[in-house]
Amino acid sequence: MDQIYVIKEVLNFYEGKQGVVVCGWVRTRRDSKGFSFVEINDGSCLKNLQLVIDHGTLPLDEVKRITTGASIRAIGDIVPSPGKKQKWEMHVRKLEILGEADPNKYPLQKKRHSDEFLRKIAHLRVRTNKYGAIYRIRSRAAFLIHRFFQQRHFSYIHTPIITSSDCEGAGDLFQVIKRGEELDSFFKRPAFLTVSGQLTAEALCMGLGKVYTFGPTFRAEDSNTPRHAAEFWMVEPEMAFYDLEQDIDLAEELIKYVVSNVVKENSEDIELFTRFVDKGLLERLNRVIEEPFVRIEYSEAIFILKHADKKENFIFKPEWGEDLQTEHERYLSEKHFNLPVVVYNYPKDIKPFYMRLNDDEKTVAAMDILLPQVGEVVGGSQREERYDVLVRNIEQMGMDIEDYLWYLDLRKYGSVPHSGFGLGFDRLIMFLCSVHNIRDTIPFPRTPGTLNF
Amino acid sequence: MDQIYVIKEVLNFYEGKQGVVVCGWVRTRRDSKGFSFVEINDGSCLKNLQLVIDHGTLPLDEVKRITTGASIRAIGDIVPSPGKKQKWEMHVRKLEILGEADPNKYPLQKKRHSDEFLRKIAHLRVRTNKYGAIYRIRSRAAFLIHRFFQQRHFSYIHTPIITSSDCEGAGDLFQVIKRGEELDSFFKRPAFLTVSGQLTAEALCMGLGKVYTFGPTFRAEDSNTPRHAAEFWMVEPEMAFYDLEQDIDLAEELIKYVVSNVVKENSEDIELFTRFVDKGLLERLNRVIEEPFVRIEYSEAIFILKHADKKENFIFKPEWGEDLQTEHERYLSEKHFNLPVVVYNYPKDIKPFYMRLNDDEKTVAAMDILLPQVGEVVGGSQREERYDVLVRNIEQMGMDIEDYLWYLDLRKYGSVPHSGFGLGFDRLIMFLCSVHNIRDTIPFPRTPGTLNF
Repeated sequence: MDQIYVIKEVLNFYEGKQGVVVCGWVRTRRDSKGFSFVEINDGSCLKNLQLVIDHGTLPLDEVKRITTGASIRAIGDIVPSPGKKQKWEMHVRKLEILGEADPNKYPLQKKRHSDEFLRKIAHLRVRTNKYGAIYRIRSRAAFLIHRFFQQRHFSYIHTPIITSSDCEGAGDLFQVIKRGEELDSFFKRPAFLTVSGQLTAEALCMGLGKVYTFGPTFRAEDSNTPRHAAEFWMVEPEMAFYDLEQDIDLAEELIKYVVSNVVKENSEDIELFTRFVDKGLLERLNRVIEEPFVRIEYSEAIFILKHADKKENFIFKPEWGEDLQTEHERYLSEKHFNLPVVVYNYPKDIKPFYMRLNDDEKTVAAMDILLPQVGEVVGGSQREERYDVLVRNIEQMGMDIEDYLWYLDLRKYGSVPHSGFGLGFDRLIMFLCSVHNIRDTIPFPRTPGTLNF
Repeated sequence: MDQIYVIKEVLNFYEGKQGVVVCGWVRTRRDSKGFSFVEINDGSCLKNLQLVIDHGTLPLDEVKRITTGASIRAIGDIVPSPGKKQKWEMHVRKLEILGEADPNKYPLQKKRHSDEFLRKIAHLRVRTNKYGAIYRIRSRAAFLIHRFFQQRHFSYIHTPIITSSDCEGAGDLFQVIKRGEELDSFFKRPAFLTVSGQLTAEALCMGLGKVYTFGPTFRAEDSNTPRHAAEFWMVEPEMAFYDLEQDIDLAEELIKYVVSNVVKENSEDIELFTRFVDKGLLERLNRVIEEPFVRIEYSEAIFILKHADKKENFIFKPEWGEDLQTEHERYLSEKHFNLPVVVYNYPKDIKPFYMRLNDDEKTVAAMDILLPQVGEVVGGSQREERYDVLVRNIEQMGMDIEDYLWYLDLRKYGSVPHSGFGLGFDRLIMFLCSVHNIRDTIPFPRTPGTLNF
């Protein structure tokens, strides 16, 4: 078969080339006297390729079958376009309709559709400019994350998805059973979907030095918010010999790296969102790239919030010892600083058992990173490397020490200071595209009561 | 804090550098008069860094605490080594023991341990040369897969892990429920762990053109074989406009790309397996890189196997219309050809509904790739793009057409010829490292009755 060129290549590299084969889906068609103009897209980039069809080559009644959504294969020559919208176009020598799309039934006609409508046809929304751009950015951001860590001598690890442990002590877990069998028949003990790969990642970082996971994680929370999904993707690096400050440095460097390279490498897609969705997007992204993140202790955050409460009148009153709420996070990162904000040294009582106790014995070496518009996108900590302190934490929190003997081994044999964090990948995509609902960043989102496709 | 250098950098780039900080775990210690020699490893590479400790700098009774498995932090100068084993060593100025490892209890003393024993201490086996090397190769192979597809204009997509559909029609599924609740309470319908992202990947390739998944997949099969795990990682590319031959070409190119770059970029790790595990490994890998894969039709494979059966006396008699068994796969790829073998055009009755019917109406455009030692590592097909044929398949196989209306939409609106395959990532690692049990390629494997960590 002849080689098929993707439109991204054609528009960038094939000026003047003759007899090029392209395939794609029709976005629009316009007929004029003697000629028709058809714009096709193949998903390789946002831009369409304009095909110029001489009715001498393809008769008009045949051309009329080339409707929005139809798929075609064309052979032709790439020539400079006299039109203003594009630099190059194809003069078609031969065109074949691969699959028609009945204009009376095809749901994606040329008009704006609501996000809510498009969620219902998630199998087709990828064919729109907006979702094509979101998924291309998602793909590139994922690759950039891998490249970032690989360049820095991290090993990519696969931590278990089905697990017996409950890392966060969070209550809402999905349980896994073999279809049609008793609860514990397959694994001979209760099995759950992971909420975090951290504990096993810690074990691996004690041999490989620096590791990261990038995989799906799960929460069976019955809440329907724009920022939560039952299934989402997390990046969890874990570094031997890192303290909290180095942990924060790495997270900031990672976010800057991904944002700056997406802005460069996906500039067309980012421009689409800046033009049609959120005029302030590119400026916001550039601030994240250029400005250092604000770093404040939790106690200082509470001080700022208490002061602001007089004007803001928060629903949840800020109080030392209580967790920050979304409204607090947004106030800090959007109103007060208008920058990414790192909050660190949280009260120990609102954080899990594995976080390292600070010398004040009241706070732990935890950190969260809050982004404007999105809120918390990173949560991390230095881990408790001291055997005795860790045992005391497990006992004080009423957990069963038998479940953590292997984890305690890591502190018994060659224990080291170490740190890590989790980055919510879907939330980073929300930030990159100025998308306000997590359901629009994942091709087929899973939320309570929703399991289509 | 001072920057910590990883040993891989130190050995390659820091010759003659003074005042370098390194951290790592002790592999061995040897004391001689006035000096001790300590080899440390930090997981960044297979090689250790030799530390030379003057007993004037650290008294011998302190040095004696530096036992195998202990973690240390050292500052010193990188100087040429008079020893034969290494080019560079560190003369230590200052050394701190971060965590001891009681020699009477630490399970990884300097001797060979069996794979079975090490599986029981999966949280510690990463600290051995062998498993460190496997996981580094696994990390690099995963990155190479991403790089391969990104360079070829593919989008990386996340298909759902929790799904309502049963892509392969395979019986053994894991079901997902919210802990402590009724079966269907959370999603309002039965929910399962994915066995393949293919069907949703097809939807996305109809907008993005070329896509690939890389994620976990699941089988609730109660079989304990060295080649099966309940949770494993698959790579599933899906390409619009590709026919079966282009599908095979891409799979062959991908395998050659990963193998050749791992051989180059992880040469030390591959050498370890060639020296200590399987003398024929590097030669086998080089044949895969250099020789074209053998391509034969299923009918020809059966012909060869029937002929061979006189000598081989297979347990399962080869018969047209029956699936190939492991013994058949191994015969073809190891004995008959001694090369990777692509078998294509399988009988339609042993393949799923979505594979494209060939013109003979007896076979479908399916293909499997068999590797020596490992057997099937890739399974793929051209997909049935014709609406009517697909409907007939669904009906003939007694499946409920209501469940596939969205999938049929893809054939109704702008349908295109398209193809894809699934590559078993863990099996590729088995092949790369000459590891014979899939449990030894995954850090924390899940199999029937096994759910530790």
